[in-house]
Amino acid sequence: MKATIILAGLILMSCFANAQDIKLNAPDKTGGKTVMEALSLRRTERTYVKKEMPVQMVSDLLWAANGFNRPTKRTAPTAMNKQETELYVMFDNGVYFYDAKENILKLVAKGDFRNTLGQQNISDNASLSIIMVGDLDKSSEKWAAVTSGYISQNIYLFASAHDNIGTVARGGGWKNEELKQILKLGDKQIITLIQAVGYLK
Amino acid sequence: MKATIILAGLILMSCFANAQDIKLNAPDKTGGKTVMEALSLRRTERTYVKKEMPVQMVSDLLWAANGFNRPTKRTAPTAMNKQETELYVMFDNGVYFYDAKENILKLVAKGDFRNTLGQQNISDNASLSIIMVGDLDKSSEKWAAVTSGYISQNIYLFASAHDNIGTVARGGGWKNEELKQILKLGDKQIITLIQAVGYLK
Repeated sequence: MKATIILAGLILMSCFANAQDIKLNAPDKTGGKTVMEALSLRRTERTYVKKEMPVQMVSDLLWAANGFNRPTKRTAPTAMNKQETELYVMFDNGVYFYDAKENILKLVAKGDFRNTLGQQNISDNASLSIIMVGDLDKSSEKWAAVTSGYISQNIYLFASAHDNIGTVARGGGWKNEELKQILKLGDKQIITLIQAVGYLK
Repeated sequence: MKATIILAGLILMSCFANAQDIKLNAPDKTGGKTVMEALSLRRTERTYVKKEMPVQMVSDLLWAANGFNRPTKRTAPTAMNKQETELYVMFDNGVYFYDAKENILKLVAKGDFRNTLGQQNISDNASLSIIMVGDLDKSSEKWAAVTSGYISQNIYLFASAHDNIGTVARGGGWKNEELKQILKLGDKQIITLIQAVGYLK
């Protein structure tokens, strides 16, 4: 009886946990500009108009950034396919882990933590900020840096391929220790880049 | 009289030097797949069929990789716009510096130096190999690593946006000291990635 109650409690807890996750949609790979057009338009934009990004656009953006385009391989390559870099996504009301395999945003912490990002003029009006985290148990600091460049360019080109979306990658200026605690990162996990994405009008 | 002869000689030498450079074409930004399609198809290909790449395609590829898309800014971003990373291009018969501003390949050394690249099964059949060189007088090793990721993803997406083009980036395995000598690099210049590009059939 006691075991049943504990089990029921655990199931209930896991349901609540799941309810706070965000199920992403299958990425919509239609539309958008060509690679050559997107390269022509690639640029940094730091000023956004505050708008919530629809789940479909968030799904497309994250898949473009670091999703799986083959069963075990991703849009951004990694040395020896180590896949040491994963993405966390910060919205106004919480921060999530992008589980690319399951295509879910898993809640890490509820609340507004944007003051940890630095340059609040950017993050205040961005729809979201993507935090790139490298795992030094899987690869080296150098390769995590290279991977962050691959992922960041995917985001830049996604932005310039779509009308009205802007982005800026930053390599520092955030409250590192505080942010690592909020993301519940281990000692061997490092934040390499933080990239805001928002609407231009 | 003597001065005139020396001057004439210098002009002649500079003409010969120029004659060995390769004038690139304005990049053709039409055609090719969309960013989302290119991301779907992005992959590493190590096996090529030997073919010379036309100057137009070389021009388009290098512009995509690290060309200027604005008067002072490029397709690949750099921290604080330091532009510390430049490209060298190795063909079967010589190695060139990609002068992105002038849109010219400037001859660095004539000859077949592909044995310095390592993994000759790749470079033997590639149409060209792009050598990314970071200048540590302009930025740090970390930022040069990040930039090489940006540039490399531009090349990956250029390849998957165009039919029949494959590419592979490598982070090591080349004869570093020998290659640095051939490229006439200084002490503060480092080779970050080497990326082969070739035809798939």
